[in-house]
Amino acid sequence: MQKKKFFNIAIVGLGNIGSYLFNFLNKNKNILSNKNNSNFNIVYVSAKNKNKKRNIKVKKTQWVKNYLDLVKKDNVDIIIELIGGAEGPAKKLVFSALKNKKHVVTANKSLISKYGDQLANIAEKNKVNLEFEAAVCGGVPIIRSLKEGLIANKISRIFGIFNGTSNYVLSSMDANKTNYKETIQNAINLGYAESNPSSDINGEDVAAKVKILSSLCFNSFLNQKIHIEGIKDVDDEDIKNANKLGYKIKLLGFSDYFQGKVYQRVHPTLVKKSSYIAGINGVLNAVILDGKPVGKNIIQGEGAGPSATTSALVSDISSIMRGNIKFPFSISNSKRKKISSGDISKLYFSSYIRLKVKDKYGVLSAVTKIFSDNKVSIKRVLQSPYKNKNSSSIIIITHSSRDSDIKKTLKTLVKKSYIIQKPKLLRIEND
Amino acid sequence: MQKKKFFNIAIVGLGNIGSYLFNFLNKNKNILSNKNNSNFNIVYVSAKNKNKKRNIKVKKTQWVKNYLDLVKKDNVDIIIELIGGAEGPAKKLVFSALKNKKHVVTANKSLISKYGDQLANIAEKNKVNLEFEAAVCGGVPIIRSLKEGLIANKISRIFGIFNGTSNYVLSSMDANKTNYKETIQNAINLGYAESNPSSDINGEDVAAKVKILSSLCFNSFLNQKIHIEGIKDVDDEDIKNANKLGYKIKLLGFSDYFQGKVYQRVHPTLVKKSSYIAGINGVLNAVILDGKPVGKNIIQGEGAGPSATTSALVSDISSIMRGNIKFPFSISNSKRKKISSGDISKLYFSSYIRLKVKDKYGVLSAVTKIFSDNKVSIKRVLQSPYKNKNSSSIIIITHSSRDSDIKKTLKTLVKKSYIIQKPKLLRIEND
Repeated sequence: MQKKKFFNIAIVGLGNIGSYLFNFLNKNKNILSNKNNSNFNIVYVSAKNKNKKRNIKVKKTQWVKNYLDLVKKDNVDIIIELIGGAEGPAKKLVFSALKNKKHVVTANKSLISKYGDQLANIAEKNKVNLEFEAAVCGGVPIIRSLKEGLIANKISRIFGIFNGTSNYVLSSMDANKTNYKETIQNAINLGYAESNPSSDINGEDVAAKVKILSSLCFNSFLNQKIHIEGIKDVDDEDIKNANKLGYKIKLLGFSDYFQGKVYQRVHPTLVKKSSYIAGINGVLNAVILDGKPVGKNIIQGEGAGPSATTSALVSDISSIMRGNIKFPFSISNSKRKKISSGDISKLYFSSYIRLKVKDKYGVLSAVTKIFSDNKVSIKRVLQSPYKNKNSSSIIIITHSSRDSDIKKTLKTLVKKSYIIQKPKLLRIEND
Repeated sequence: MQKKKFFNIAIVGLGNIGSYLFNFLNKNKNILSNKNNSNFNIVYVSAKNKNKKRNIKVKKTQWVKNYLDLVKKDNVDIIIELIGGAEGPAKKLVFSALKNKKHVVTANKSLISKYGDQLANIAEKNKVNLEFEAAVCGGVPIIRSLKEGLIANKISRIFGIFNGTSNYVLSSMDANKTNYKETIQNAINLGYAESNPSSDINGEDVAAKVKILSSLCFNSFLNQKIHIEGIKDVDDEDIKNANKLGYKIKLLGFSDYFQGKVYQRVHPTLVKKSSYIAGINGVLNAVILDGKPVGKNIIQGEGAGPSATTSALVSDISSIMRGNIKFPFSISNSKRKKISSGDISKLYFSSYIRLKVKDKYGVLSAVTKIFSDNKVSIKRVLQSPYKNKNSSSIIIITHSSRDSDIKKTLKTLVKKSYIIQKPKLLRIEND
């Protein structure tokens, strides 16, 4: 309800998301202006390749060849960065836009998770907004919820499914009983994975989101220390075993804060079939947090794609249009804390361990002795022979044990002559 | 990042929630001031009974005997109304506070669902905030999500579990195989239901929330037309039958917008056991919405209680402290639409119908003929005799049929001499 204002918007990057946003903003000018009591116009766009075929109508006067020219233009208020990548053009654009007192909206998780602290500093100094709702979990309004709807809360844990591609792959392997390789190929063919899906699959994408969320939850600077495992070692046999034991396998990101330290990690995780998170299939994302006073909160939605991402981008643009100037990471950089990182090796997990062993007398007894020597107590064992192969699979579910002790156990095991394959470790989450 | 400001807060109503909020604000002054870049102070409190034992330390100078005096005091910026009820003191306080240009934060769903349009008008005219996150689903930040995080979206449907007490009762009946009466008593004893739980149980509480959410989702004025059924007619036999058929029973609130009309309804509903909503047990609340471009979004959390409600109240207070002045219902009253209400009788549902019939030849055939005469097609029938009672239970699951046709069917049935008890109707949701 502040005085009506006019905002000139420039969009840089016109891939699927940029083009969708361009059309959406033009089509919904009226309702968005009403809701935000401000008007806006897309004054400029810029993209690497002007001549690429796109489903948008850009006026000649809207095109800017050199995207860096935008930051100097007086008639630009908000720059929307949809280039991607932590370095290169995206980095250059966002740094110089903020330095030139332009508001910035970005969907770039790599950039924010790496340079977010420096960028926030410039934004704060220059009294402009740096908004990145679209960088974390697409259509799930988690950033705005942390900064506004749940602002009262002291958060001790945030975790969930933060990557749609890897979740799609794991749920397809489970539903269709396909192996990892064919499932990935299928996901690429269907457009659920990029042709080079490595950052989605290797956990890097989730890690970037975990870092951003940690920082917002714990009022701290970004913390680069994080344990990362992707899903490429999860095979159909693990998924079958998990089902037999009452679990599903999900790639989860976690950030826990206790005893003055933050523990960030990303790894495939066994979750009970009956748990909420086990039911999140396909490209959906889900964020679960524990806060005081609110208790447990869950937000779920589509994690990626042009439409869900546009929902997030428009919420950022709207926030700027309403004059809701906020600190990018919820509090002033001068008040953010430096929190040290804890090591995953000190945490306790119940674990799933899969061994492929020679089928001979005394192996199980030797194996279980190694567990007990390393202070890892066994909850459940499942031994089954591989047909005609003179080998057996041994699945062990441990009681909650120190991660370093589990690792020591595996290190000892791997040297034994009766172990045929590198032992497989998957942690179990009982939340 | 606006200039630091100072806000004086007055709390009216010091029950469980008011007292919790009072302590919370005092304890968290520092972090909240940092996050909002503004300071605050609880300058006054007021409550009906000054001498009631409370777990808070109120200074002599903070007490105000007549709560209405607060609206005239120059050193009050924000009034927090925690009296409750659509009429009487709460109504007087909120109307006169807004008229006197005080920001208002309220948890009062009855008041907002009844007088929200008038109140929003005054707030808008006087450029103050009227915030009511705590009025709908406690710790679930649904209002702020609709107004900010999901602002881009055209919403076509919102539904979910909006009342913790009734959900607790239904899930307990299911889990403990207890009947309605003993479960309610148990809920009262455990503090999950008020000693007079009627508004929670009869659907009125859910209805108020549906009206508020509708208005926010569809940019319309409050619509008072709503179909309401509570849970008092759901008995253990229905829950047992539902389980047998693969369903759970939940009290759901719905608001759907299509073909220019809004359809608001509250009723106990059969939902598939495998559905997300079936797994929401106890006092939890869950809100599910369909929006464009975001797709389906879910937000879940604790629906009531002092701590969850305080999370919501503090998000409202913070929003005011950040100078984020917004229209109470997302857009200006001058832009809100008058949408007409559709009648539930015109909607189509698959339904569960339970009949108690005399155990004699030809009854089932007579019953099914009545269904077919009324254009209601039957999907499934389950007939089972009551032991030693010369009577049977007939459960019929219909295909999707017009609600008015189902009602006509029941009206015809009830007159038949072989029908021993008023037929029971529960609608099925296949979302």
